[in-house]
Amino acid sequence: MLPKAWIVSIGNEVVSGQIVNTNGAWLAKRLIVLGFDVRRIIAVPDLEEEVVEVFRDAISKSVDVVISTGGLGPTYDDRTSEFLAKAIGKKLIVNDEALKLIEEKYTVKGLPLTEHRVKMALMPEGAKPIPNPVGTAPAILVEVNKTVIIALPGVPKEMKAIYEEYVEEFLKQRAPKVYRFEKWIKVTGIPESSLAPIIDKVVKKYRTVYVKSHPRGSELASPVIHLYIVASSLNNLDEAREIVEKTYRELVEEFLKLGGRVEELEINAVKGE
Amino acid sequence: MLPKAWIVSIGNEVVSGQIVNTNGAWLAKRLIVLGFDVRRIIAVPDLEEEVVEVFRDAISKSVDVVISTGGLGPTYDDRTSEFLAKAIGKKLIVNDEALKLIEEKYTVKGLPLTEHRVKMALMPEGAKPIPNPVGTAPAILVEVNKTVIIALPGVPKEMKAIYEEYVEEFLKQRAPKVYRFEKWIKVTGIPESSLAPIIDKVVKKYRTVYVKSHPRGSELASPVIHLYIVASSLNNLDEAREIVEKTYRELVEEFLKLGGRVEELEINAVKGE
Repeated sequence: MLPKAWIVSIGNEVVSGQIVNTNGAWLAKRLIVLGFDVRRIIAVPDLEEEVVEVFRDAISKSVDVVISTGGLGPTYDDRTSEFLAKAIGKKLIVNDEALKLIEEKYTVKGLPLTEHRVKMALMPEGAKPIPNPVGTAPAILVEVNKTVIIALPGVPKEMKAIYEEYVEEFLKQRAPKVYRFEKWIKVTGIPESSLAPIIDKVVKKYRTVYVKSHPRGSELASPVIHLYIVASSLNNLDEAREIVEKTYRELVEEFLKLGGRVEELEINAVKGE
Repeated sequence: MLPKAWIVSIGNEVVSGQIVNTNGAWLAKRLIVLGFDVRRIIAVPDLEEEVVEVFRDAISKSVDVVISTGGLGPTYDDRTSEFLAKAIGKKLIVNDEALKLIEEKYTVKGLPLTEHRVKMALMPEGAKPIPNPVGTAPAILVEVNKTVIIALPGVPKEMKAIYEEYVEEFLKQRAPKVYRFEKWIKVTGIPESSLAPIIDKVVKKYRTVYVKSHPRGSELASPVIHLYIVASSLNNLDEAREIVEKTYRELVEEFLKLGGRVEELEINAVKGE
């Protein structure tokens, strides 16, 4: 049995349909590639009764990993940390490590620690803060019984940066031993904005593949994109390799039609250990 | 207290992040305009334990309206009807009314009722089928205690058509007495594909507004679009009117920049009764 994961998107703008839940889809893709069984993506409003209930629900069902997004900022309606503390029966306290992370961000810019800034250091007792490489609010990690809960910010850029720099590595240790096949390629001559719809189309076909583009040149003058293609399998490396290669061939075919040039850079085959 | 609603998106492709949950966002918008309090948008895989649990959860919490999407088609992995029957403790039987609806669709085209086609008429005992104006699988309506559950197909075109032709009218009777302000306008000279991003941008600002475009001319040669702008308020008509007018003004400003012409067609003010 694969470890189970839930993704919880907290915020009125998501549950009211004002924005589409792209954070949820992005996280699901990443968790699946690591070998987690994503069982729910749940959007809830910034309401105590709903958020507390969803966290408690996950704990009582022994979901292995819960990742929430949203509600970590400095304003009055950012209350995820408070709700999380309630859900797990812990006090909400100023986390010294979190406060230090926040202080560093502001003192560099000569800004004082106001009440709203300190608020972002409030965490459930026993929580572990996770640095935010591109924003100010640290993420929160708590463990209750068998369940790890990681609360990330809702701003996609911050959510993704924290996930990629810190969370993914942590989760790999909790993930099953999967076989992972990775390929890096270089695409020249096509702007990233033209690659995006092609990648979206191809990626939709395969449940266990994830493709990420990293722009290296300038978007219009001389576009150079490094593409990372990864897939995983519980069974063997060939299965993962096959999905990556299929994805790769379909992408290349489309890129060539647009006059792009494609070069293979690197291949990694990671055995489940 | 507003009546509560949950939206349940059933399908591996949603919970795995292969597709972003646009159905959920669309339904949330529509339910909020009617005056429902959308408390959750939940994506789950096509797995019995998950789907049954979510339906049961909603019933035990006396959620007023649950709308699910997905899993109603003819293939083996379309099992929403079966799971719904399990969740509410009813037998799964061939619904005669549903069978007639399906038969009509196929006999018009001279096609026989195969096993896979009959499958789409299997519904929980006591369920009411809802016709599908653009596809074949009828939707399903059941009531359990205080909760109405409506299972719609996952194909966006079918889901929207059934909602607009049948479900919305039904839900209005369960909705609170809201004030609704509606405005129809005509936009000439801008293709719908250019209107779309503008509408998306403006609509995001207001929780209770919904804007729908109806193309009346040809997309490129002579684009004519009728736009429907609607907002609701629990308190008074002015509140709803103000949101519609603000939305209207912001839209018009952008449309004029693109060289479009705008004409007001019709205004409806609906008092909560």
